[in-house]
Amino acid sequence: MPSNRLSKQIQFIKEVDKLKSILRRNNVIGTQQRNENDAEHSWHLGIMAMLLSEYSNRKIDLLKVIKMVLIHDMVEIDAGDTFCYDKKAYEDKLSREITAANRVFCILPEDQSNEMMSLWKEFEELESPEAIFAGCLDRLQPFIMNSSNNGQIWREENIKSKDIMERNNLLQRNTIDLWEYIKEIIDNSLEEGVLLD
Amino acid sequence: MPSNRLSKQIQFIKEVDKLKSILRRNNVIGTQQRNENDAEHSWHLGIMAMLLSEYSNRKIDLLKVIKMVLIHDMVEIDAGDTFCYDKKAYEDKLSREITAANRVFCILPEDQSNEMMSLWKEFEELESPEAIFAGCLDRLQPFIMNSSNNGQIWREENIKSKDIMERNNLLQRNTIDLWEYIKEIIDNSLEEGVLLD
Repeated sequence: MPSNRLSKQIQFIKEVDKLKSILRRNNVIGTQQRNENDAEHSWHLGIMAMLLSEYSNRKIDLLKVIKMVLIHDMVEIDAGDTFCYDKKAYEDKLSREITAANRVFCILPEDQSNEMMSLWKEFEELESPEAIFAGCLDRLQPFIMNSSNNGQIWREENIKSKDIMERNNLLQRNTIDLWEYIKEIIDNSLEEGVLLD
Repeated sequence: MPSNRLSKQIQFIKEVDKLKSILRRNNVIGTQQRNENDAEHSWHLGIMAMLLSEYSNRKIDLLKVIKMVLIHDMVEIDAGDTFCYDKKAYEDKLSREITAANRVFCILPEDQSNEMMSLWKEFEELESPEAIFAGCLDRLQPFIMNSSNNGQIWREENIKSKDIMERNNLLQRNTIDLWEYIKEIIDNSLEEGVLLD
């Protein structure tokens, strides 16, 4: 018999498999109708953390950032994906996600449940250097996806350049090189007509 | 204009999006016909590394293990997924993957390309404590998936218990608790008839 501790860990590993079926609004690059899911998105953020940490204005603990981005969407197993430009759905987003965090993370042994909960809360509070950089990546990744997909979501949802600037202003204050990249792509997208002013 | 360095990093981030379309043989848990892809699998290994590192017989650098599992399948963008029980396909697996690694990782700036190549080679050589633990997770994860899917691949491909024991013997030598878990599931699966002796 596996120990009670290992049984809980395996149960959690099986539970979070559900993240592979939580669909986001944006498509995988180059596909017309294949939505990205939360597991793929979280993996992509992990890779981006490995490669882009040099652009954080402040010194960051890379392991902590990677842990954060790998687990940040687990609450969506119960709470679902909330589209970042949907103001109405944002009203009860936090309360839905706290309930979810309490159920999902508490499958784990107490020490690991506490670590997960602590990482997730830190990510949501967006105050520590690691949380801020993780939050920047969580904005930059769908931006890269949408700009690579000819502005898919922007066109579908009538998102304007000012909405994108507002959503991404966290980068302006915390990672100037990545912000400059976003601004350049916005300018190009406006010129090409895939984004409206 | 983003710097030449950032341009290469962004190009790589877009390139590896293709991992979301490289399909593995096993299904996502609870789905009948939805194959897991490499990005999802790599994310799942990252989570497992966070939770199970305490079971490694030897001390390991967790950040290194997580980096390894997040990037270990990137060569499959060009080389494709090689089914672990397909002996014929394994004959030229390494040469196909080296060619792929040279193309994919070399999109990055030289220092990061070298780091990725070094991590991937270390993973493949299966000698360092980190590579061995990453290799154990890379075996355990599909085992958990298949056992949760009523032995899907075992039944489809006529995999016997001795094949699974052989494939997973790396765990016997390096993480005894996880090996004991595998043995117990094999015994149960034999009893239930979802696995043949």
